Amino acid sequence: MRKVTIGIDIGGTNTVFGFVDKDGLVLGKDSVSTRDCPVIEDYVQMVVDSIERLKRRLTEAVEIVGMGIGAPNGNYYSGTVEYAPNLIWKGVLPLVDLFRGHYDFPVALTNDANAAAIGEMIYGGAKNMREFIILTLGTGLGSGVVINGELVYGHTGFAGEIGHTIVVPGGRDCGCGRQGCLETYVSATGICRTVQELLAKRRDASVLRDIAANKLAAKMVAEAATSGDAIALEAFDCTARMLALSVVNSVAFSSPEAIFLFGGLVNAGDLLFVPLQKYVDETMLQVFRGRVKILPSQIEESNAAVLGASALAWKELL
Amino acid sequence: MRKVTIGIDIGGTNTVFGFVDKDGLVLGKDSVSTRDCPVIEDYVQMVVDSIERLKRRLTEAVEIVGMGIGAPNGNYYSGTVEYAPNLIWKGVLPLVDLFRGHYDFPVALTNDANAAAIGEMIYGGAKNMREFIILTLGTGLGSGVVINGELVYGHTGFAGEIGHTIVVPGGRDCGCGRQGCLETYVSATGICRTVQELLAKRRDASVLRDIAANKLAAKMVAEAATSGDAIALEAFDCTARMLALSVVNSVAFSSPEAIFLFGGLVNAGDLLFVPLQKYVDETMLQVFRGRVKILPSQIEESNAAVLGASALAWKELL
Repeated sequence: MRKVTIGIDIGGTNTVFGFVDKDGLVLGKDSVSTRDCPVIEDYVQMVVDSIERLKRRLTEAVEIVGMGIGAPNGNYYSGTVEYAPNLIWKGVLPLVDLFRGHYDFPVALTNDANAAAIGEMIYGGAKNMREFIILTLGTGLGSGVVINGELVYGHTGFAGEIGHTIVVPGGRDCGCGRQGCLETYVSATGICRTVQELLAKRRDASVLRDIAANKLAAKMVAEAATSGDAIALEAFDCTARMLALSVVNSVAFSSPEAIFLFGGLVNAGDLLFVPLQKYVDETMLQVFRGRVKILPSQIEESNAAVLGASALAWKELL
Repeated sequence: MRKVTIGIDIGGTNTVFGFVDKDGLVLGKDSVSTRDCPVIEDYVQMVVDSIERLKRRLTEAVEIVGMGIGAPNGNYYSGTVEYAPNLIWKGVLPLVDLFRGHYDFPVALTNDANAAAIGEMIYGGAKNMREFIILTLGTGLGSGVVINGELVYGHTGFAGEIGHTIVVPGGRDCGCGRQGCLETYVSATGICRTVQELLAKRRDASVLRDIAANKLAAKMVAEAATSGDAIALEAFDCTARMLALSVVNSVAFSSPEAIFLFGGLVNAGDLLFVPLQKYVDETMLQVFRGRVKILPSQIEESNAAVLGASALAWKELL
């Protein structure tokens, strides 16, 4: 019987889960709404029932050996989700304990970016690396740091918040209540804010002038840049320069073998990677020059959340 | 017979060495010039001879069980010192191999700030900590990062260069050839540069206006601040604000239990620690607030270099 772990990714809107074997094969995947159960116990029961239904629909019998959960503000040490602004339940949620009430196998929890790091390590481009960082560029900027082959949770369990390192003191307002965090510049949202700034600063024509700030998406900026729109191109250049600063500073801190980039903004490909590599090469401290790779994630985006969470479970079992 | 390790600290001017037992007792200490031997093999022979002489002078017989070396640009993995600008020997120096040619016991090497971190862990305030950072504020700013109870060397062996994280893009010229590195602001030299900037910016009287830039030392700034000199006080405030930014960003990265400060500038005490704690409290990401201690190093300054290097040897033996 094939051994699998369950990977669960809890997002503000949907909860996605799936069965994954040790090689990263997703045997089945489904999702439920994260918002339908005001009581957390009912939500867990619903997820457990849905997992059972999915299991019955699989074309082969499986043995479940563990569960990994990726969730915003997930704390690996305590197995709790703490004060997650995008979830309907407030306070501290003992998610691991709640799921353990239904299962005999080990259950582990961390945040989604940390899960992505473990996914990269178990299934992706970091398989043989003991030192790497992953940056997930979505609405915000998440990160996971691996040192000596282990994910860094830190003293609190919340380490790896590179998106909330302050890169411009007194800079852009951040959702965290502070100003100038990296994710306000380097993320799908960040590049759109940069476009607004450039529309104000520059006078040249741009297709982006026809789009309301509220309607602008990173994908449109990428499309405009591909068509040679000067403001869109400068927005990518600004994003790359800011990201390069953070890459260079992260390398000074922990000297990883590679930095992986994941998420929507990474699909822009050369628009991002070419100026990024240029600025990194220009700015890197001598001793690290040419000694760190900047790579796109090797995890397929559509399954990444489930793969990351299931990888956490496999990592626990190793 | 008491077991000891030899701690050697190689500075640009002097090489200090001593015998240290497991509890951090320095049984004997001496130094030689680092500049007298143009050939590195001769230098090593001289140090070995001096160690032998010191051993004979000890009041009790000791068994040497290991050697630790702290040196600028020291690489733990390769046991080499690589392109250290302040040493008279150029290129890559195989220091560990050279000393191993004289001894049977293990020899380990790292840079001086990493050695300070291990000193703090073995003998100092970090004895029971698995996650901490030490910042050494001297002429420059060195750092050592401990995660999961292990010093972070990174993929290259050179991790922990927080002094060379860029905090002001395009800012002050740094000895590393780049601009805006933390150490150009937060160090004994950095605070003196801040004083020059404030003397230019402000118009009020200050005792610091009577001192040539070349003659100004951090200690004079501290003395002026203690006497209530407004420019000196603002220089400490600026230094603390910049250091706080780096503390807050380092915490977002690795979430340590404590950050230790070591070195000359730390002797300024409240002049530095009071504004530092204030800015850290104001700027820390919510989830880490009140969850990291900022502490002075518990290692006595006069013996710190030898203790750090010897601690590296003890750590290897554990």
